[in-house]
Order: sequence, then C-alpha cells, then structure tokens
Amino acid sequence: MKTYSMNQLERYPIYLKHFKELRDQGIEIVSSPKIAAKLGYSEEQVRKDLQNVSLEPGRPKKGRSVAQLIEDLETFLGYRERTVAVVMGVGHLGSALLNFPAFSEMGLSLQAGFDNDPAKIGTNVGGKPVYSMDRLSEVMREIGATVAILTVPSPVAEEAASRAIEGGAKAIWNFAPAHLDVPEGVVVENVNLASSLAVLTHRMSLSKAKGDH
Amino acid sequence: MKTYSMNQLERYPIYLKHFKELRDQGIEIVSSPKIAAKLGYSEEQVRKDLQNVSLEPGRPKKGRSVAQLIEDLETFLGYRERTVAVVMGVGHLGSALLNFPAFSEMGLSLQAGFDNDPAKIGTNVGGKPVYSMDRLSEVMREIGATVAILTVPSPVAEEAASRAIEGGAKAIWNFAPAHLDVPEGVVVENVNLASSLAVLTHRMSLSKAKGDH
Repeated sequence: MKTYSMNQLERYPIYLKHFKELRDQGIEIVSSPKIAAKLGYSEEQVRKDLQNVSLEPGRPKKGRSVAQLIEDLETFLGYRERTVAVVMGVGHLGSALLNFPAFSEMGLSLQAGFDNDPAKIGTNVGGKPVYSMDRLSEVMREIGATVAILTVPSPVAEEAASRAIEGGAKAIWNFAPAHLDVPEGVVVENVNLASSLAVLTHRMSLSKAKGDH
Repeated sequence: MKTYSMNQLERYPIYLKHFKELRDQGIEIVSSPKIAAKLGYSEEQVRKDLQNVSLEPGRPKKGRSVAQLIEDLETFLGYRERTVAVVMGVGHLGSALLNFPAFSEMGLSLQAGFDNDPAKIGTNVGGKPVYSMDRLSEVMREIGATVAILTVPSPVAEEAASRAIEGGAKAIWNFAPAHLDVPEGVVVENVNLASSLAVLTHRMSLSKAKGDH
C-alpha cells in the first residue's frame, strides 16, 4: 500500500473543497497553475499531489476534469464509504461535533453521544441520542462503531479510550489534551487546540519581531 | 530570534500539561527518560525540546525542576502575557470556543463574539457579549483585540478575515475550511477538521491492511 505524508493527506480535503466550489460555479476543467495560485501551494506540489490520487494522467495543455478529480479524491479519502462513529463527552465541543453536518459528507456517520451527566443522558444532541457511558461497549457493538471521538476531560481520557477500544474502536479521534497509550492496531489522531495556539502565538511573535526592525 | 519547528512547538503545550499534572501530584523533580516514556517521545527529543526553552541547564543525574519547567514553558508559550481575541461566527463551534475555559490559562482572552444572526446578537455566550458583525472593527479596536478566531462558513471566510484585519487583527485562527489570502505581517493558523479526519482515515486503512496480512 502506498503511503502519503501527513502534510499531503491534510491537503487533500482542501483540494476537494476547492474542486466542489469550481463545480458549483459550472467550471469543468482546471489546471495545476490555477489550483496552485488559488490555494497558495507550488505548482509542482499540486501536480505531484494530484498524480498520487488520480487515475487520470495529467494533460499539461488541457487541464484536468473537475468531476473526475472530485470522484478520485472522494474515493481516496473514504468519503464514499461509511464509518460509524460515537462521541464520548457531550460538553460544548462534543455537542458542536454532533451538530456538525459536514461529517456525513466525509463518510463519517456520528450516531451517538455518551456522557456521565444524568441531565444529558436520554436527550438528543444534533439529532443523535445521548447514552450513559456505562452503555458504551453495548451500543458501539450494536451500531458497529469503529471510531470514537474523545472530547472528555483530559484526566479521564486514557480510561475513556480503553473503554472505546473494548467496545470495538479501531481509531480514536482525540480532542482531549492528553497522550493516549493504545494497543497496536488502534490509530490515534490528536486534535490539540493548545498546540495549534502555540504555533499561532509563536508565529505572531516572529512576525512582530520582523516588523519591529 | 530563534525559530522552532511546527512539530516542536506543538509538543510544548503537551509537556506543560504533563508537568502541571506532576506538580499537582506533588512531584518536584522529573527526568527526560520518564517524560519520554510517559508522552511517547524519544529521550533525545525530550532533552532537545527542553533545552530549547529552559534557562536551567540539564543535569543528567539529578533531573529537572518541575516548577522551573512550568515557568519556562509558560513564559515561552506566552501564557503569562495576555492577548485579546474575538470569535467570528457564533454557531456550534464558535459557542464551544467561547465556552472553553482553558484559553485564559493560555494567555488568550476571548472577549466577544460576532454573528449576523439577529437571534444571537445581544445575547451572551460563555459569559461574553455577541455583537453584530457590522460592529467588528469598532469593538475590536475598543478592546484591543489582535487575534480573530474564524468559525464562519467557508464561503464568507475570506471576507470575514479581511474585516478582522481592518479591525486590527495580527493573527487569524482559522477554523473555516477555506484558504485565506492575507497581507504580509498577518499570521494565519488553520485548524482543519477534515484534514485531521483524512489522516485518521488513511492511517486506519493502513492499519487494517497490515492486520489483514
């Protein structure tokens, strides 16, 4: 199986979004230089990225079919399959994720939330039922969930991950600012807002230092 | 000014979190091997990362002071300064961010939300007032905001960013899945959930392919 760099993988949804916008504007053919200019990447990078996912060979003079690119990217990204996910921790962030309509377009079907708060158990959030954490394994197996989205507080993240894996999770999308130790074969992808903010703050200070000279 | 790699910057808040947990457990001294084991990094990486931010030299046999590490990291990350930020777009994600208590510990003071929805304007979210987008520049200048957090829909993200920059934003923390063109001297840091999900999905398929053999 071919492997892709993280940065490259991260660019594919951005390409896809752009191509869908072009399609909605009635544009049928697009060239690498135009894509590069619009998205702020180099032309070479665009050509390389698209060659890696598209079955259609690049045609330097003619450009690429927008519809074909959309199909290739959706297939590559798994958007045409369906992965069942649950959200553990129905606080502000968990609720926002349960309400986020775009996940279903990305092949991710969020089907339930789990929380320990009796005031939340039995309610619906984003149209999805919220269950007690005690029922996690049972419900995950029933609905065939393989992805657990973790938005629990950091001190209980490790335990929540273990329970999700017991319930059949093959991947943890971890929004809790905690390092998770998981068995081999289970994937952890971290979204750490503090880390993103650290990069932003540091780049601001660099930019300021440059402007001060 | 020293520069740091993105990955390194992203690790610093994770170190800081870990050191605060140690402090809360009453642990005063910590060694690089222990940090490495706990966080899943290599010992060499931990030593290098900490040397880059800590004024205290590493003492291989004695370990490092947890309190000193916390002070050094908080200073480095700007958590001891105060940057004023606003949230543009008070939907589910914007509301979650306005309600997120940890930002103030990170030196980021979220002071207002902005939205076009009359039902939201004039309300409070997370204890912060929500204003009409029309008042963005005025309010940003009044409160001295230099960071704009963008959670508006993707088609209006570019325009929202321009207005924030008019209002004095030096950095855009962009949660909208859109590429932003900004003038030199303005920093954009993107948080793209679709990109993170793409990495997760791809790693799941790699892990599955491996398990199938």
